[in-house]
Amino acid sequence: MISIEKALQIVLNSTQNFGIEEVPFMKSVGRVLKEEIVADRDFPPFHRVSMDGIAIDFQQFKNGQRAFKIAGIQAAGSAQITLENIENCIEVMTGAVLPNNVNAVIRYEDVTLENGIATININSIQQGQNIHNKGKDGVVGDVLIHQNTKISAAEIGVLATVGKSFVKVAKQPKVMIVSTGDELVGVDETPLEHQIRRSNVFTLVSLLERLHISSETAHITDDKPILKSKIESYLLEYDVLLFSGAVSKGKYDFLPEVFEELQVEKLFHKVAQRPGKPFWFGSAASLGINKQDVCKKETKQTIVFGFPGNPISTFVNCLAYFYPWYYKSIGLAVKEETAILGEDVSFKPNLVYFLQVQLQNKFGHLVAFPISGNGSGDLASLVKTDAFIQLPNDKIAFKKGEVFPIIRYR
Amino acid sequence: MISIEKALQIVLNSTQNFGIEEVPFMKSVGRVLKEEIVADRDFPPFHRVSMDGIAIDFQQFKNGQRAFKIAGIQAAGSAQITLENIENCIEVMTGAVLPNNVNAVIRYEDVTLENGIATININSIQQGQNIHNKGKDGVVGDVLIHQNTKISAAEIGVLATVGKSFVKVAKQPKVMIVSTGDELVGVDETPLEHQIRRSNVFTLVSLLERLHISSETAHITDDKPILKSKIESYLLEYDVLLFSGAVSKGKYDFLPEVFEELQVEKLFHKVAQRPGKPFWFGSAASLGINKQDVCKKETKQTIVFGFPGNPISTFVNCLAYFYPWYYKSIGLAVKEETAILGEDVSFKPNLVYFLQVQLQNKFGHLVAFPISGNGSGDLASLVKTDAFIQLPNDKIAFKKGEVFPIIRYR
Repeated sequence: MISIEKALQIVLNSTQNFGIEEVPFMKSVGRVLKEEIVADRDFPPFHRVSMDGIAIDFQQFKNGQRAFKIAGIQAAGSAQITLENIENCIEVMTGAVLPNNVNAVIRYEDVTLENGIATININSIQQGQNIHNKGKDGVVGDVLIHQNTKISAAEIGVLATVGKSFVKVAKQPKVMIVSTGDELVGVDETPLEHQIRRSNVFTLVSLLERLHISSETAHITDDKPILKSKIESYLLEYDVLLFSGAVSKGKYDFLPEVFEELQVEKLFHKVAQRPGKPFWFGSAASLGINKQDVCKKETKQTIVFGFPGNPISTFVNCLAYFYPWYYKSIGLAVKEETAILGEDVSFKPNLVYFLQVQLQNKFGHLVAFPISGNGSGDLASLVKTDAFIQLPNDKIAFKKGEVFPIIRYR
Repeated sequence: MISIEKALQIVLNSTQNFGIEEVPFMKSVGRVLKEEIVADRDFPPFHRVSMDGIAIDFQQFKNGQRAFKIAGIQAAGSAQITLENIENCIEVMTGAVLPNNVNAVIRYEDVTLENGIATININSIQQGQNIHNKGKDGVVGDVLIHQNTKISAAEIGVLATVGKSFVKVAKQPKVMIVSTGDELVGVDETPLEHQIRRSNVFTLVSLLERLHISSETAHITDDKPILKSKIESYLLEYDVLLFSGAVSKGKYDFLPEVFEELQVEKLFHKVAQRPGKPFWFGSAASLGINKQDVCKKETKQTIVFGFPGNPISTFVNCLAYFYPWYYKSIGLAVKEETAILGEDVSFKPNLVYFLQVQLQNKFGHLVAFPISGNGSGDLASLVKTDAFIQLPNDKIAFKKGEVFPIIRYR
């Protein structure tokens, strides 16, 4: 049994590079950018009018002129016009190019328009006011979005603005999620007295969908030859295999043996934590099939996460190990979150305790209130909570007000 | 011009009910549940073995017996067997039904198995240990997930367990997002000197995708008759119209007039906030077409959000008004979040200030660091920030350490 720090380090030393793909920008939300997005023009690309109103030569105002004959209109989307006589003005619209020979915009609210004459009703204006100068937010070639940024609505706007209709993002791993356990039946089936419905695979599919990874699923009966032959083929085809169940000490927990026989290298089995202790982790180098040339074999690395089958164990291990492994693999830096314990907790075993908590934001403080479930089989308790708080194994009593790392899942 | 409190109250008084639909449970993530999910059986449905090991009659152990002949195996997924002679034991697997006539499970770690005899190596065991009793987590009929819960991976597991392969969720509104502005060209086009590419519609589509709403988009030129005829048809077809631009004082800002002519009731225009002040909000009752019977007309309410066209204005108003309107419409309670200001800020205008901030979680404290952008046109500044902090208009100086509401967007 190893510590969670050691386990996480081994997991993070097994990251992979899945390559890069180009996707339509509107399909890139949630993906990780794999190119620098640079300004194709200055931002704004022209001296841009930022208020509806009139544009004048500031010097005229300074000299005392208040009434200006309207010599034209500069609409947004029209080519730049010129104020030929600086004693006149031009009506200008937000988003328009600033006309030639003007250098201040006075908003309509401060102007009276009558008979083609605009009279300014205020006595203080600034040169350059209500003009968003060319290049003020950035100049051509500036990096607007850095590589390895997770794309969200904010980035979508920038991608559109610079004309990136296709964008390079990290490819997602090819994932197979396998459940085992002869007690499991399908969601649509009515279980017999001694059976239950499958649920962990669906939870895992959802947890991966949060990362925009689409996965495949399979259920294999507790039959060693069948397990072996199926897993052998999955190792050739997938980057990652996630298992739920069959990694503990049971008579039908065949996975560790099967992995060994298939030469999946065991990197660890069992971590000093609760729940999720019997976690098995390994890596296989196999001869995969080259997609471009099926006659050509190539070495392929497949990572195997063997999560214990209890629902909470599977859930927390996916968040605590698969998520960080995925983030590092695709190059995404994710900040650690912490919360303040809202109640005293005591936990005796010499294990790191992933305790389910409800989070409350109180005056800028993130407070974690423990929710008592009935152990790692109590799936329904996940519905009542938002996160796991990670209590270290070096003490027994955890006091209200102490701060610990959390793993949020909503 | 009205206050943001008043504006939000009017928006929230205009919520709608889009009805309920049934979707496959694996498509329900992010949607809002519109039924109570109840336990179809007890949880667990049987006395469930929670450790791999041997099961015995506790009284035998108490009487001093330590060596038990193995009389059988109870595998997960097998029908319950019976321990006929209570001086023997049964090997039991995690997830299995507890056999008849046993009431304690001793894990393999504490047992030596030899020649068909299991010898217990510890001197203290508890009656009922390692048994997850039938109904401990819940009994048949218990509500496991309440109506109006947002479905996430945790709920997916419960839905699978109780056999809800289809689930009732709130229907999503039918949304049309319209951009206006003759300066705008497509993402794939190369803008002329006085043009820029469309971006706000894409940002809005992304912000709505975060809510699992799929929307349609259109661009209309600054031509009043065209605007009027298109909007008239959209009012018949959609629950919500989102506009970006053409709501301010410009000569080609036709939307307020067009809305009036189409009898869209103006509920307010202009809110005392920066950015996003010229926000127009209204509601139209029109004769829509009944989908079931196209000859039958029915009254239909369409809500119109006219956001100002500057990118940050559109962005913040979508978060500050459309989001809460949507949440209330579908019945989702969303908790207010707050953060601690990380730096002094001063803001003079008598407006609520939505200031862009970067959030940092420091020892369980959420600290908001202002990022200075160049006003509401500075789209690229959204990439550097995580949230808007909402500074009230009743003072000018905001001190480091003070707590204010935030609107997070990542």
